[in-house]
Amino acid sequence: MTSPLTPSPANSRKSFGSDNHAGAHPKILDALRDAGQGDASAYGDDPWTTRAVAQLCDAFGLSGPGGVFFVFNGTAANVLGISLMLRPYEAVICAEGAHLNVDECGAAERIVGCKLLTVPTDDGKLTPELVASRLPGRGDEHRAQPRAVAITQATEVGTCYTRGELQRLGEFCHANDLLVFMDGARLANAAAFVGCSLADLAAHVDVLSFGGTKNGAMGAEALIVANPALATAVPFQRKQQMQLASKMRYLAAQFSVLLADQLWLRNARQANAMAQRLADGISDVPGVRLRYPVESNGVFATLDPALIEPLQREWSFHVWDADEHTVRWMTAYDTTEEDIDEFLAGIRAAAGALTA
Amino acid sequence: MTSPLTPSPANSRKSFGSDNHAGAHPKILDALRDAGQGDASAYGDDPWTTRAVAQLCDAFGLSGPGGVFFVFNGTAANVLGISLMLRPYEAVICAEGAHLNVDECGAAERIVGCKLLTVPTDDGKLTPELVASRLPGRGDEHRAQPRAVAITQATEVGTCYTRGELQRLGEFCHANDLLVFMDGARLANAAAFVGCSLADLAAHVDVLSFGGTKNGAMGAEALIVANPALATAVPFQRKQQMQLASKMRYLAAQFSVLLADQLWLRNARQANAMAQRLADGISDVPGVRLRYPVESNGVFATLDPALIEPLQREWSFHVWDADEHTVRWMTAYDTTEEDIDEFLAGIRAAAGALTA
Amino acid sequence: MTSPLTPSPANSRKSFGSDNHAGAHPKILDALRDAGQGDASAYGDDPWTTRAVAQLCDAFGLSGPGGVFFVFNGTAANVLGISLMLRPYEAVICAEGAHLNVDECGAAERIVGCKLLTVPTDDGKLTPELVASRLPGRGDEHRAQPRAVAITQATEVGTCYTRGELQRLGEFCHANDLLVFMDGARLANAAAFVGCSLADLAAHVDVLSFGGTKNGAMGAEALIVANPALATAVPFQRKQQMQLASKMRYLAAQFSVLLADQLWLRNARQANAMAQRLADGISDVPGVRLRYPVESNGVFATLDPALIEPLQREWSFHVWDADEHTVRWMTAYDTTEEDIDEFLAGIRAAAGALTA
Amino acid sequence: MTSPLTPSPANSRKSFGSDNHAGAHPKILDALRDAGQGDASAYGDDPWTTRAVAQLCDAFGLSGPGGVFFVFNGTAANVLGISLMLRPYEAVICAEGAHLNVDECGAAERIVGCKLLTVPTDDGKLTPELVASRLPGRGDEHRAQPRAVAITQATEVGTCYTRGELQRLGEFCHANDLLVFMDGARLANAAAFVGCSLADLAAHVDVLSFGGTKNGAMGAEALIVANPALATAVPFQRKQQMQLASKMRYLAAQFSVLLADQLWLRNARQANAMAQRLADGISDVPGVRLRYPVESNGVFATLDPALIEPLQREWSFHVWDADEHTVRWMTAYDTTEEDIDEFLAGIRAAAGALTA
Repeated sequence: MTSPLTPSPANSRKSFGSDNHAGAHPKILDALRDAGQGDASAYGDDPWTTRAVAQLCDAFGLSGPGGVFFVFNGTAANVLGISLMLRPYEAVICAEGAHLNVDECGAAERIVGCKLLTVPTDDGKLTPELVASRLPGRGDEHRAQPRAVAITQATEVGTCYTRGELQRLGEFCHANDLLVFMDGARLANAAAFVGCSLADLAAHVDVLSFGGTKNGAMGAEALIVANPALATAVPFQRKQQMQLASKMRYLAAQFSVLLADQLWLRNARQANAMAQRLADGISDVPGVRLRYPVESNGVFATLDPALIEPLQREWSFHVWDADEHTVRWMTAYDTTEEDIDEFLAGIRAAAGALTA
Repeated sequence: MTSPLTPSPANSRKSFGSDNHAGAHPKILDALRDAGQGDASAYGDDPWTTRAVAQLCDAFGLSGPGGVFFVFNGTAANVLGISLMLRPYEAVICAEGAHLNVDECGAAERIVGCKLLTVPTDDGKLTPELVASRLPGRGDEHRAQPRAVAITQATEVGTCYTRGELQRLGEFCHANDLLVFMDGARLANAAAFVGCSLADLAAHVDVLSFGGTKNGAMGAEALIVANPALATAVPFQRKQQMQLASKMRYLAAQFSVLLADQLWLRNARQANAMAQRLADGISDVPGVRLRYPVESNGVFATLDPALIEPLQREWSFHVWDADEHTVRWMTAYDTTEEDIDEFLAGIRAAAGALTA
Repeated sequence: MTSPLTPSPANSRKSFGSDNHAGAHPKILDALRDAGQGDASAYGDDPWTTRAVAQLCDAFGLSGPGGVFFVFNGTAANVLGISLMLRPYEAVICAEGAHLNVDECGAAERIVGCKLLTVPTDDGKLTPELVASRLPGRGDEHRAQPRAVAITQATEVGTCYTRGELQRLGEFCHANDLLVFMDGARLANAAAFVGCSLADLAAHVDVLSFGGTKNGAMGAEALIVANPALATAVPFQRKQQMQLASKMRYLAAQFSVLLADQLWLRNARQANAMAQRLADGISDVPGVRLRYPVESNGVFATLDPALIEPLQREWSFHVWDADEHTVRWMTAYDTTEEDIDEFLAGIRAAAGALTA
Repeated sequence: MTSPLTPSPANSRKSFGSDNHAGAHPKILDALRDAGQGDASAYGDDPWTTRAVAQLCDAFGLSGPGGVFFVFNGTAANVLGISLMLRPYEAVICAEGAHLNVDECGAAERIVGCKLLTVPTDDGKLTPELVASRLPGRGDEHRAQPRAVAITQATEVGTCYTRGELQRLGEFCHANDLLVFMDGARLANAAAFVGCSLADLAAHVDVLSFGGTKNGAMGAEALIVANPALATAVPFQRKQQMQLASKMRYLAAQFSVLLADQLWLRNARQANAMAQRLADGISDVPGVRLRYPVESNGVFATLDPALIEPLQREWSFHVWDADEHTVRWMTAYDTTEEDIDEFLAGIRAAAGALTA
């Protein structure tokens, strides 16, 4: 792992490298223990799965249980999700910087066999206009045919679609015979920022993922398939895509805990608040400038290049864009005010040393 | 799930439906809790993974750490394993009844794109002669080219390759330019039966899986790549095949527990012993006949057809072959003598009612 | 090419190695010259294609032009045809000896990603009963789901489905939610034998190929898609599967010639008649025994093993099954009575030498 | 076909729509007739193939016959070519506008399963600097791994790499563990422009295609594999990719004619000269401006938008970029001075009508 995203070696300080550096929430661990007693049928035919599916149906406003499926990780949720929408010659329009395009080792191309039609977008968000730019060529047998649009909520750079933006984009897509997939690895953070329900975020989307792992789970993602015509294929596609857990109860139990008492929302709010605290704290630090608005749990900052190395010696975080000296600081459900304040003090000290 | 393999609904009695009906071993749950504290780098760059990899290297006699990888489930271990060995036009020789061929929803064909060249074999085991029967056509551009042989240890029908059989088969394959993959979803049970080390079982194999899930884990499989030339591709193939866990420590910690104090072996021995107890107990029951020798934790029995339904009303198990009235009874690490004796009493009662 | 199918070196005598050893029919060459003058739009937007499509629509009883597509070879026709019918987790039931399974280097598995569920059948033909034997497992997410049945007319061993057999099989398939694909690489020979129109042979089939190459063309195959819902994807799938000819007129012109004045039928009848003449001629030769009924342009004969080598020194033909000493003698549209009689004399002489 | 590339309906005037609108050269038709007599072994084991392979080995400076393979079309040559170079997680760096990326309906992604890492480049050419821009991420398991670079000679916009540019790029690639593939659908035109041999153009390339179809053939492309380690897989990959012609002699015979007496070069020179004549002729026409330098057989011109429709009523050609009113005029081996002069007169008349 020699990518510029590789963090410096961890130490005892809170990592800002990724929200998946955090451990599992204590309630998650309790829930696994509770689920661990005795026998249960495999592959989801168990009471824990039944309960978690019902909770997710409720949270996403689904009318029946047939549209909720658990998988192991976010790449799988993305690949399985888009695989439901496409024939072999159909393509997905997505942002150039989308995880699906950049960070999944070509899984979409290899597993689904589809082309990704990418669109440059600075803030990570697609618009009807950007989507429209990839539609010429429809009907031409020489071109892969756009059939789905994949968006990310919150985006890779921490921004969030508003409800209005989602509605406008969704309506444009459906009016243009395009299905909408939403990568919700950080959907909880988006819901916390936008201030709406999960169902509200899913209103104009055909298939989406709801990430547990970055929200305090040990490792579990839910695929939500609102469109029943698309859902019938999921059991087979999931198995074939190597995502069918035999002891499914342990994936389901994690979601049950997150859904109960809205733990998912409290976790997301804490992470978001800590990112905001960090953003506020650096606003007046010389040599440090916010790169993107802070709308979830990531702070992207462009630094004086001389600041990066000293800070990485003490805190884990990624250089997001080496050319423009932008770094990414992620917070998690377990990031504390003390963690932020300690980091802010470090940033200020480094900046001070620089200007001294 | 309407297959003849679907068990009847579970009840409070011990399930004989599958070894994956068992919950996670209490020590597994403890280990997850221990691994759950604080931050750790993602994707395997953490001390839990380092430790578990070292333990597995030791158990399998690997000289360096570069050949151990964790994945989420058994299908993934099989598909990832064979994907390391093949070019697109190369094929895998396997038993007709292999899990890879029958029970993975065509994952090998879809994900790897390869043809499986199947061989009928009653006891689930391949021999040099059976492998040789699929070699004609080599060099002919019209034929998919055999390049790997996939075996299962213990097999789908509970039999085990002896060390001599493994050696003879491995030597034949390597002399014929064939790589060997071993599906070890129940490798622990095989080692317990054969009475040798994991390294002994792996001696003539290029890539194999070591199953944690059926051995008492919550859900984790290890891929062991003995051949360093094949190992370099694994990180990329694993990611692309949607098997890279971000919070890897929770997969690794499960294996650490299984390896410590040979918990894996004790779990396997208990399961095997209970299968043997069941087999011994039915030996004199009229209308019940062993179908395969009991060499691991599965008992396959051909029953008077009138016995099946009454027994399924009270115990969960699969009908393995509806035409010949053969059922499969699986034991697990947590099956007890009481569970077996209660089941045996039920079998005897049903058989008695029949002959009365 | 070291397969047992490789013929011995060619000499001046007529080859019985394959119907694709014959050259292009003189009328085909004339037609290519006629099509070769001046410009034409590419990719099928030309008058030659329009004409050939109309002729094929007429021959196959299609109501509109939207279901006829040209491709380069038989493997492509098979792969493109089945690709129209399947989602990634769906499977094709076919005969174990089908070209699709044996002789296409795993193209179906790699290009379509599907599993082939094979059925042993001595005469190359499937029946409702044989198809039904592969249906258990439907609805079980662990199993690839049967969705299509692929048959060959004439079969690999030269037999032909009767119209009644096709109707019974087609009705069974459609009643069981299975689509039917027919590999018609030698469809002309089957129509000549059965004594019916091409439309009659296609009556119960969803997609089929009509082979030009073995019928006297230079190289061209037609894919006939009777089901309009399946046809919309063909232009894209054909391009993506590398089968879109830019100078399409040269494929189309070949079919126009074959369709005009039923040249296809005369060619097929000549080949069939010569196979029958050969079969009749060997009926009383000691050491020579017909292996399959001669229903098209192939004669499969089991020989005294000592006969094979002397005959292959003078005539090109394949050993079909080395274990049972069965050879395959193919006739073509340009095989003459003299070719057959010369070969028969050679067979009789060799057999005589043997018994002398 | 509603794409902006679709030409207006053809009429009796010479088409400038594409070099594949031209018919087959008369000598090609003669050669097919010569090859059409009598039997020949299938799949390339025939004297026509042997001869054409030898001619191509000679033209490309190959030491042995093992590196020349015929396929049906250009998409296939590209896909087969890159499939030789890649493992499933490896990627191809290419120009954003490359045929491989834009015009092959996603064939690379679906058939090879690879990601294309695209680079914007106005003149269609890659440089070491542009290639280097896609190398970050190497070794990072989250990223598809660049392994090959695909270039086009002549490019999609008619420009040609010089020998020096090819050397510099090839050396950079090989020094950086990247293989080089060259799409030579118009390689003849490039050789004619650059003024060197085919071997010279291939000097720093691992695998390339040599297009016959746009050079006057009926339909045939050659894949040249300079690297013997890559060539062993071709027979199998070609068959599996549905590109193995049974009557191979008819593909081979086309190349024999093109190679004999350098017909390929004369054809290319004629097409190039006519493009140059057209470019010269428009240099002083108001409302018409060359968009790219004319270095092969395509003229790209940006027009006053009011000129496009009147010209398309009488001549077939494509609008290349609707937003910037750029059109593409292709010449072919059979384009004459009269064709060009007639077209130039039409352009001048239309431009005159506009300014009147």
